[in-house]
Amino acid sequence: MADKDLNDLFLHQLKDTYFAENAILKALPTMAEAAQSEELRGALAVHLKETEGQVKRLEEVFRIVGERPEGVACKAIQGIIEEGQEVLEEFRDGEALDAGLIAAAQAVEHYEITRYGTLLAWAKQLGLSEAEALIQETLVEEENTDQLLSELAEDAINPAAA
Amino acid sequence: MADKDLNDLFLHQLKDTYFAENAILKALPTMAEAAQSEELRGALAVHLKETEGQVKRLEEVFRIVGERPEGVACKAIQGIIEEGQEVLEEFRDGEALDAGLIAAAQAVEHYEITRYGTLLAWAKQLGLSEAEALIQETLVEEENTDQLLSELAEDAINPAAA
Repeated sequence: MADKDLNDLFLHQLKDTYFAENAILKALPTMAEAAQSEELRGALAVHLKETEGQVKRLEEVFRIVGERPEGVACKAIQGIIEEGQEVLEEFRDGEALDAGLIAAAQAVEHYEITRYGTLLAWAKQLGLSEAEALIQETLVEEENTDQLLSELAEDAINPAAA
Repeated sequence: MADKDLNDLFLHQLKDTYFAENAILKALPTMAEAAQSEELRGALAVHLKETEGQVKRLEEVFRIVGERPEGVACKAIQGIIEEGQEVLEEFRDGEALDAGLIAAAQAVEHYEITRYGTLLAWAKQLGLSEAEALIQETLVEEENTDQLLSELAEDAINPAAA
């Protein structure tokens, strides 16, 4: 398909990210329930709420580009989530479990940060200013969550795990 | 296994990252060859060289913790790389190919950034100062590569793809 351009690529990645956010919505409750620290459980519960809003923003972006919201299987997020589940099983009940959960959650956040960062650059290039604003809003939320998880790890979770 | 602690988690993630870097070493030449822009081809070739050095640093960290270098299958990087290959196939020969390749390479970089960021925090917590310095060195390289790819995309590749 030699004629595919940045619009096609944008739509492809939008579908990939939509699939990823929905997969994260399903995975987050299990992670939150497994967390030993109340603070971590709380942070993951807040992020679950945020993720619901992020899915709605993506649906809005689909509307802006005149497409129906639809996911396309995203092997990257599936692999990231599966790896998190393996750590959960392997370290369950141990003192390092929460540190492992934070690492898994940050891998999810970084996947989202890279995808929204790319979508933002492409939306700018394509002159989709309304979409750009929505994507930017989510990107800031993801970066803040990642930062919060780093602080939680360094201040409380890692010392308790060592 | 209730007795697993942060040392076990550190070693687990070290093996995961070692597997990931070796998978990236195998995937990068294909991505570089497929790139249409000479600048992107050059950037990926430089990062291939860097990755070889990063593998050696990980082997050094294994030595520091008294373990033999060994990988453990990392489904996350496998998924990220597979997704990149799918974009390569779908957009091959089209004007958006390089933009898709940069997005794929940045997804790889962000996976490494999150893993090295976590390893760095854990090495600090465990008092592994020699390992900390090596991990920090690699983390800076990954962040610089990500930044370079963003600039390349915004300055040249995205405008050409639109």
